[in-house]
Amino acid sequence: MKKIGIGLIGLGTVGQGVANIISNPNDRHPLVGELELVSVAVRDLQKERDISFPDSILTTNPIEIVNNPNIQIVVEVMGGIEPAKSLIIQAIRSGKSVVTANKAVIARHGEEIANEAKSAGVYVLIEAAVGGGIPIIEPLKQSLGGNQITKVSGIINGTTNYILSRMDKEGVNYADVLKDAQQLGYAESDPAADVEGSDAADKIAILSGLAFGGTINRAEIPTTGINLLEAIDVNYARKLGYAIKLLAISEKEKAQSSGEESQPLSIWVEPTLVPADNPLAGVNGVNNAILVEGNPIGQVMFFGPGAGSGPTASAVVADILNIAGIQAMSEENPFNLDPLLSAKSWRSCHVANEKEITKKNYIRLIAEDTPGVIGQIGNIFGQKKISIESIVQFDASHNQAEIVVITHKIKQGQLSEALLEIKGLPQVKRIAATMGCL
Amino acid sequence: MKKIGIGLIGLGTVGQGVANIISNPNDRHPLVGELELVSVAVRDLQKERDISFPDSILTTNPIEIVNNPNIQIVVEVMGGIEPAKSLIIQAIRSGKSVVTANKAVIARHGEEIANEAKSAGVYVLIEAAVGGGIPIIEPLKQSLGGNQITKVSGIINGTTNYILSRMDKEGVNYADVLKDAQQLGYAESDPAADVEGSDAADKIAILSGLAFGGTINRAEIPTTGINLLEAIDVNYARKLGYAIKLLAISEKEKAQSSGEESQPLSIWVEPTLVPADNPLAGVNGVNNAILVEGNPIGQVMFFGPGAGSGPTASAVVADILNIAGIQAMSEENPFNLDPLLSAKSWRSCHVANEKEITKKNYIRLIAEDTPGVIGQIGNIFGQKKISIESIVQFDASHNQAEIVVITHKIKQGQLSEALLEIKGLPQVKRIAATMGCL
Repeated sequence: MKKIGIGLIGLGTVGQGVANIISNPNDRHPLVGELELVSVAVRDLQKERDISFPDSILTTNPIEIVNNPNIQIVVEVMGGIEPAKSLIIQAIRSGKSVVTANKAVIARHGEEIANEAKSAGVYVLIEAAVGGGIPIIEPLKQSLGGNQITKVSGIINGTTNYILSRMDKEGVNYADVLKDAQQLGYAESDPAADVEGSDAADKIAILSGLAFGGTINRAEIPTTGINLLEAIDVNYARKLGYAIKLLAISEKEKAQSSGEESQPLSIWVEPTLVPADNPLAGVNGVNNAILVEGNPIGQVMFFGPGAGSGPTASAVVADILNIAGIQAMSEENPFNLDPLLSAKSWRSCHVANEKEITKKNYIRLIAEDTPGVIGQIGNIFGQKKISIESIVQFDASHNQAEIVVITHKIKQGQLSEALLEIKGLPQVKRIAATMGCL
Repeated sequence: MKKIGIGLIGLGTVGQGVANIISNPNDRHPLVGELELVSVAVRDLQKERDISFPDSILTTNPIEIVNNPNIQIVVEVMGGIEPAKSLIIQAIRSGKSVVTANKAVIARHGEEIANEAKSAGVYVLIEAAVGGGIPIIEPLKQSLGGNQITKVSGIINGTTNYILSRMDKEGVNYADVLKDAQQLGYAESDPAADVEGSDAADKIAILSGLAFGGTINRAEIPTTGINLLEAIDVNYARKLGYAIKLLAISEKEKAQSSGEESQPLSIWVEPTLVPADNPLAGVNGVNNAILVEGNPIGQVMFFGPGAGSGPTASAVVADILNIAGIQAMSEENPFNLDPLLSAKSWRSCHVANEKEITKKNYIRLIAEDTPGVIGQIGNIFGQKKISIESIVQFDASHNQAEIVVITHKIKQGQLSEALLEIKGLPQVKRIAATMGCL
């Protein structure tokens, strides 16, 4: 068998992890030994690295890689939207399959890229884009195809889970943990994409597309991060028997009218109270966990390291091996794409109106410490037909009370109306926090 | 695309689950709609079933299915060693790919079947043989191939996990729960394969072969079931902060000599104390959980329903879709097998000597209630260089004491020698239980 030429664009932590696996095939699947690292594009040729290459392999010009006839698979691990997206498309047009960990590009331009790949008859595989080393993309594409999927949810951002785990364990506040996480390399110097929930929204957009078979508009996903989370809410949640996790959730909804052709999906990213006995509550540190629910499988969970050089490289190499395996089937005859791996959309989906999202809620209010206030709040919820699981008054001091309400499952439209009226009560000073609750 | 003909051998719970999925493709991957159930072999044509077929589809002669030219994929879900094994081989020789849930056949005859499949250029896929609906075979074959796997372990028998969960929760004894489980359909009328650990041994043999790349001799796997487990050990374990789970474990060992060509693996099945904060301790009922450890991925866990009609059918259909996906790539040109899916052995492995298994142990002794006995037991462990985590004396009454010892990690050869000497102590009446401990 002729060796399969790999071109690597980017030699950061993930790129180095991939190079390490390819250059050390011993004890791995024998197909790893059939891979050959032909060229690696880096920003700085002189930079000191843990891994060394012959000079002939390194280049500062990624265009050389997408055009190199000795390369069959281009691995894009440089990150960012551009030039990554253009390089992916150029590689496809040159007839090369692409493996990428770039969730930002796939979540925004996945459909365009899939169409290009289909025309060119090549694969674009993205296992490393979601869940780090956890096999989740391939199981969704291949192993769960017999199911009617109803829900995909989970913890899919390692940085925020690390921060939340420490806030919960140590009772410290957000800003302090973030600073620490940055120093330890668990958070970027610009942490916005992680802490504001955008990275999780990218990933749930990708998972939704695969689980439900249709591209959705990523920009429409209601997204709340953990950047405004207060230590007091972590504390109250713990007292009530919950841990707070940043969850991304995508649920199949009933079509509004029977003639509706596009499948509505309720999708959102939000800090969420998870009961202590739910398996997600025990997922700590940079670990991720993804739950898939469907018929007839019931529920399966995938758990593992959601980030890091080694785990992400493991996922990248999984994709490379998949393409190499197909190439090993036939070196000469061109043939059609495997319809499972190529993951074409097979129906139309859209993000349902945020008001239709149905879930339990945690609400913390600051009110005057007067006897009637809980009754008045309860009345407003009752008028809006919102049933309440609990109202607890915490920490009354300085003449003001902290009141925590946990609702049963309700539509978010109902909740907004009720909160508007509650805000109007003279005894209520402000609504200090709202979150989801499992 | 021409429809892909499916022949089903067996119409029990799994077979009916598969037929349900194929006959109701709506909302599933569109490839499900390309499958056509051509023929179904049953034992009794007249039997009442929840699912009905035209008479022309049912047959009592499975040979018709393996020889039917309109069938491309034979699904064997009849169970048992024979005639299942012969039918699988005949189907392969007729040029058909095979999907089977039959762990007993694969664990014993997997190598022979793989060789037949290789000669015939067809696939034999076995996702449903381990872990029910949990995608674990395909991730091991495809998604984790870049890793040097070091350990595979977990809870892989749903019946025993159901029994252990109830023993732990309700404090009831084994025989009573078993009777109940049989009435509820969670245990077979002849429960031996499950409760004596043989089913788990079949499955860990299969997982070992895939994780480490070589066939092992299933008959050599040391296997202890839960059939002799006493309620008192479940009770003591709980008091010490553990749950008891039937674990199957397969660990890569260092070769004894550098020239050794076969890879030794420590493999065993045994009731094992799992610390309450270990994720496996929370896996209850018929659920399964499988941990895979390797370099560079670290650890990933797969969790879900380990048995049942729907989940197992989901896994069977996953395999059917994989083969259908490959057939969709080329209807005319014959080509080589995908080296990932065909899962050929790539090195030689063997089961290491049981004495070399290195693990923590739980030992319960019945001894005279005299002051010196714990000291004497401690001395013997010390002489054998076995370091002890704890010795606890429970329930001294009627002049006798129950002593529970938990060791640190030691070789089982060391332990056997120590237990032989301890048995010889005049104050020790008997060794009532030994188990593993995480």
